[in-house]
Amino acid sequence: MEKLKSIIENTDTNLGKAFDLFIQTLILISICLYSIETFPEYRDGTPLFNIIEYVIVGIFTLEYILRIIVATSRPGFIFSIWGLIDLFAILPTYLSFGIFDLRFLRIYRLLRVIRIFKFGRYTRALDGLKKAIISIKEELIVFGFATLFMIYVSAAGIFIFEHEAQPEHFKSIFHSLWWAVVTLTSVGYGDVYPITAGGRVFTFFILMIGLGIVSIPTGLLASALTNQNKNS
Amino acid sequence: MEKLKSIIENTDTNLGKAFDLFIQTLILISICLYSIETFPEYRDGTPLFNIIEYVIVGIFTLEYILRIIVATSRPGFIFSIWGLIDLFAILPTYLSFGIFDLRFLRIYRLLRVIRIFKFGRYTRALDGLKKAIISIKEELIVFGFATLFMIYVSAAGIFIFEHEAQPEHFKSIFHSLWWAVVTLTSVGYGDVYPITAGGRVFTFFILMIGLGIVSIPTGLLASALTNQNKNS
Amino acid sequence: MEKLKSIIENTDTNLGKAFDLFIQTLILISICLYSIETFPEYRDGTPLFNIIEYVIVGIFTLEYILRIIVATSRPGFIFSIWGLIDLFAILPTYLSFGIFDLRFLRIYRLLRVIRIFKFGRYTRALDGLKKAIISIKEELIVFGFATLFMIYVSAAGIFIFEHEAQPEHFKSIFHSLWWAVVTLTSVGYGDVYPITAGGRVFTFFILMIGLGIVSIPTGLLASALTNQNKNS
Amino acid sequence: MEKLKSIIENTDTNLGKAFDLFIQTLILISICLYSIETFPEYRDGTPLFNIIEYVIVGIFTLEYILRIIVATSRPGFIFSIWGLIDLFAILPTYLSFGIFDLRFLRIYRLLRVIRIFKFGRYTRALDGLKKAIISIKEELIVFGFATLFMIYVSAAGIFIFEHEAQPEHFKSIFHSLWWAVVTLTSVGYGDVYPITAGGRVFTFFILMIGLGIVSIPTGLLASALTNQNKNS
Repeated sequence: MEKLKSIIENTDTNLGKAFDLFIQTLILISICLYSIETFPEYRDGTPLFNIIEYVIVGIFTLEYILRIIVATSRPGFIFSIWGLIDLFAILPTYLSFGIFDLRFLRIYRLLRVIRIFKFGRYTRALDGLKKAIISIKEELIVFGFATLFMIYVSAAGIFIFEHEAQPEHFKSIFHSLWWAVVTLTSVGYGDVYPITAGGRVFTFFILMIGLGIVSIPTGLLASALTNQNKNS
Repeated sequence: MEKLKSIIENTDTNLGKAFDLFIQTLILISICLYSIETFPEYRDGTPLFNIIEYVIVGIFTLEYILRIIVATSRPGFIFSIWGLIDLFAILPTYLSFGIFDLRFLRIYRLLRVIRIFKFGRYTRALDGLKKAIISIKEELIVFGFATLFMIYVSAAGIFIFEHEAQPEHFKSIFHSLWWAVVTLTSVGYGDVYPITAGGRVFTFFILMIGLGIVSIPTGLLASALTNQNKNS
Repeated sequence: MEKLKSIIENTDTNLGKAFDLFIQTLILISICLYSIETFPEYRDGTPLFNIIEYVIVGIFTLEYILRIIVATSRPGFIFSIWGLIDLFAILPTYLSFGIFDLRFLRIYRLLRVIRIFKFGRYTRALDGLKKAIISIKEELIVFGFATLFMIYVSAAGIFIFEHEAQPEHFKSIFHSLWWAVVTLTSVGYGDVYPITAGGRVFTFFILMIGLGIVSIPTGLLASALTNQNKNS
Repeated sequence: MEKLKSIIENTDTNLGKAFDLFIQTLILISICLYSIETFPEYRDGTPLFNIIEYVIVGIFTLEYILRIIVATSRPGFIFSIWGLIDLFAILPTYLSFGIFDLRFLRIYRLLRVIRIFKFGRYTRALDGLKKAIISIKEELIVFGFATLFMIYVSAAGIFIFEHEAQPEHFKSIFHSLWWAVVTLTSVGYGDVYPITAGGRVFTFFILMIGLGIVSIPTGLLASALTNQNKNS
């Protein structure tokens, strides 16, 4: 029992490493399959794909049960983030058994993508992301609100300037929010842009102030992640 | 009187916190209503929306009067930024009473968005923004002028190269300014772009020098805001 | 003579400050006029505009002569950057006198935009730009070459992948350079973009490596300018 | 022999400098020719271009042989990066002799672009790039995986939201990856963008988290390159 625990939860022993590598390979195969099945021609699955899928889900189920068995605190594991991810990684396939309507089947199948988060257990970066977010929680909240404030003010402003000139693109403030997000992150798809002189001058001012504010949460996250990596 | 003052102006007591939370909730409801009313189907308001609006304006008016009464210096409060925001948050609704032409009514209604700035009283970030701007005032002026200079030079240059090839997009330097802003902030909507070889080579040089200069005011603001947050 | 020199070249005295302010106002008026004249309806000038233009050029000519007279080293001033800018600021108007063909006249008139660089004498930022460029000259050359290298490699690569699928947009490597510049600065107008799978995978790798490299000269310039401002 | 070695491998002597400059000039001419030959009208080469090409390849072959002769360890040079680049810089031309089918000839000719990497021997920046990548190898791997993870999650998410509304643009997850790359690098060509409300809200969250994560490898590379340059 102790040995099983060390194999499943640690990577100190060779068997532990092999177990992790085995699970990681299965996740990768499963994600590849998932991606291929999004092609229109494979959308309903093929017999081969289904067999592989069922085998993998079977192994994942076994892994989930084993992890529950060896866990120090069983409810603690089941309701931890990793426990829930392990559960939701296998659930869609089991749920799809009970459904015969193909359309719903597809939606359940799509949820299998949650499986990629199983990788998170092995990635220092995702684990680091959680810690980084906690370490700058307060700043993130303050500047997160400032970003939302800035995006709302931009959307409301551009709505006032543009909704008469382009009623189809700036139909309401909710529609204008899309423009605000795309512009303030400097993505600029070009699907919506101001055409009136007032709207353009407003965009200039918003860009001068807004780019600075919107880049702060992003910059905070990037610097927190980099610092963390340096220290560990 | 002293107690009233402490409820309205401070958040030390439970009553003070409750008062702030109450006002914040009203602002949020008011902003949600404002946003929904920008949908074409709700643009003229509905009876329900109007009633909620009048109740909120009534409470805001009461809040404004109370703030004047308890203020240490009454003219000081009335002409402070927060005093003016409180006034302009209720004014559009009162002004709209005297107007029967629907079109003008709508424009007055749009001004109610000023209400969102009432949030500023509770947001450390907006308060920090003001302090951050003051702390880097001199640099902002110098690099703000450099940015304007860069944008003008870009617009004048692209006008010379492109106004014959694309007279509709680069009609005058004022029209070219829009291209300069969108390009130097790297938003790049794609509504205007150079098509001549000369214009493209010019764009290359402008991007190499300009991105660096235009990003300075934005970067200064971001770093000033982050530093401030760290110190406080 | 000494007094004239101090008025023209320094800003210590009130008269010196007034002289500078006077010249700056004239530059501003001149640039505004220049911008308005780019509107199609004013492109050939109006009598009023021409009169203002001639008066300003007259004063600029007087200023230029005075600056030559009071200069410590006359050839030194004439061939300095500011001396040449002062000369080229008035030259187009004098040259346009000898030309009766309207089209050429317009081109000469366009050169008047050089006048904006007269502002540079008064802007610390532009003066700082020169010093900043000198202080990071070596890095700029190394990373400038790396940027050109990166842009060329991107253009050559995308040409190989895309010129058969989109012969009109990726006609030659020179045409592909435009795509490379717009993509690596993350402007992304959307006038040219890869459509083949190979081109898109190549773009992914180019963006991962290239954004980092291309941002270095820009970042160096920005940090050099900011440091300089802090020290002075 | 010793003298020949010093001329070819070092730049201490005047002859060594002259040799390097000579080779660099030939690379530049060769790259210019290569670029011009990508124009449709020159795509099959012209007699003049072919003669210059053969002369340059002859000299590069001689250079390659000389470098092998003077190398301290001959196999060590042949299988070094620079040795392979020197070989692949001349190979396409030799291979093209045996081919009479014009289409294949063109593909072989395109491979000549590898010649530009011969410049790498003389550029500190490219040499620095290699060292910089090595110095931050571990961080690059961790955040490289985090970037791939982020891009995959974005693509899978947008596929779920958009593939019914825009089946031609979000045909499968592989097609959606292109959107994820273009959006998370904030290039935003505008060829694909979400149109459903769900997809747009998802894009907002992805941009807020993703811009920070995707910019880390790029930022790491930029800072490693800049630090290196400062120290050397």
